[in-house]
Amino acid sequence: MSPRSGRRPGTSGARETILDAARELFAANGFEKTTIRAVAAKADVDPALVHHYFGSKVDLFTASIALPVDPHDVLAPVYASPLEDLGHALAAAVIGLWDSGHRDAAVAMFRSEIAGGEGSLIRTLLLEVALEPLLARIDHPAGTGRLRAELVATQMTGIMLVRYILAFEPLASLPSGRIVEIVAPTLQRYLTGDLPG
Amino acid sequence: MSPRSGRRPGTSGARETILDAARELFAANGFEKTTIRAVAAKADVDPALVHHYFGSKVDLFTASIALPVDPHDVLAPVYASPLEDLGHALAAAVIGLWDSGHRDAAVAMFRSEIAGGEGSLIRTLLLEVALEPLLARIDHPAGTGRLRAELVATQMTGIMLVRYILAFEPLASLPSGRIVEIVAPTLQRYLTGDLPG
Repeated sequence: MSPRSGRRPGTSGARETILDAARELFAANGFEKTTIRAVAAKADVDPALVHHYFGSKVDLFTASIALPVDPHDVLAPVYASPLEDLGHALAAAVIGLWDSGHRDAAVAMFRSEIAGGEGSLIRTLLLEVALEPLLARIDHPAGTGRLRAELVATQMTGIMLVRYILAFEPLASLPSGRIVEIVAPTLQRYLTGDLPG
Repeated sequence: MSPRSGRRPGTSGARETILDAARELFAANGFEKTTIRAVAAKADVDPALVHHYFGSKVDLFTASIALPVDPHDVLAPVYASPLEDLGHALAAAVIGLWDSGHRDAAVAMFRSEIAGGEGSLIRTLLLEVALEPLLARIDHPAGTGRLRAELVATQMTGIMLVRYILAFEPLASLPSGRIVEIVAPTLQRYLTGDLPG
């Protein structure tokens, strides 16, 4: 796992250099077009070192935006849910995560993304990583899948904003279960219902 | 309209001083508890000068957060709408505004609020100014009005984020009319439908 000639040695500084390179490339090019190889080249290290420190590309992405959990793990119950329960499963998984000890990390990432730039990391996280495994299932009629995923994003980012960042009461103190029940039908309609127009 | 003794003269600098004081007090204390008199005192000018420059308290608030329009004017069709059309009227008014020449101002205000602090100005704008005239009409069963307004805020702030700030495609390029039709039933349910729990 030692770096090849001409590359930086695998000191603890290399870990940060790799994360910086990953953040920059994920933000600029998105998840799909970013390769471990490209991140390694930008960080001037061997690709094997990237794998050694971070494992898979999803793991690298997760680490690069400081997510405390793998979004695919959080959403596993959603991917496994029958189509007619998708809205409820999605609301429960995401709000369950945000109402857990992971709230601060999620809020911090969200906030800096909105403030900072184009929000490319949020786009990548939501559309290329988190919702991507659902796209084929919600693409009815054909061609609507991505719009459906984005409509879900409008509702969930709005919950993030109003419940956690703006902390409007009574919404901020509503029990998880109740906000899930309220929001689930909205998500279900966006995921599988008729979209006017 | 000339300032009284011991107050700053009404130079063009006073206008900015008043706006700074108004922004600070609206953010700290909200719309309801902020008075023209308190703003004048903080800016060290005569209250008459505040009225002279800005007219009413809503006008002062509008100017202090650099809104190009009075939210009560934008939402006039909503306030006049029958209860069963409220969701559609609200979606049409707000998305109509955002899809107009006022988009940049709205995005700028929103973004700096999220980045900057507690979002107190957004809270004031949405809950105390824009949605306040609706609260009594949507308070069924009694006590749910404010939660309903906040649920509307989750959907609309999410649209602001995903359509205008993150600019996800295809949502960002969807015609106004189509996004209004898609979102209207969500707003209608939040405003007047059954809320589980």
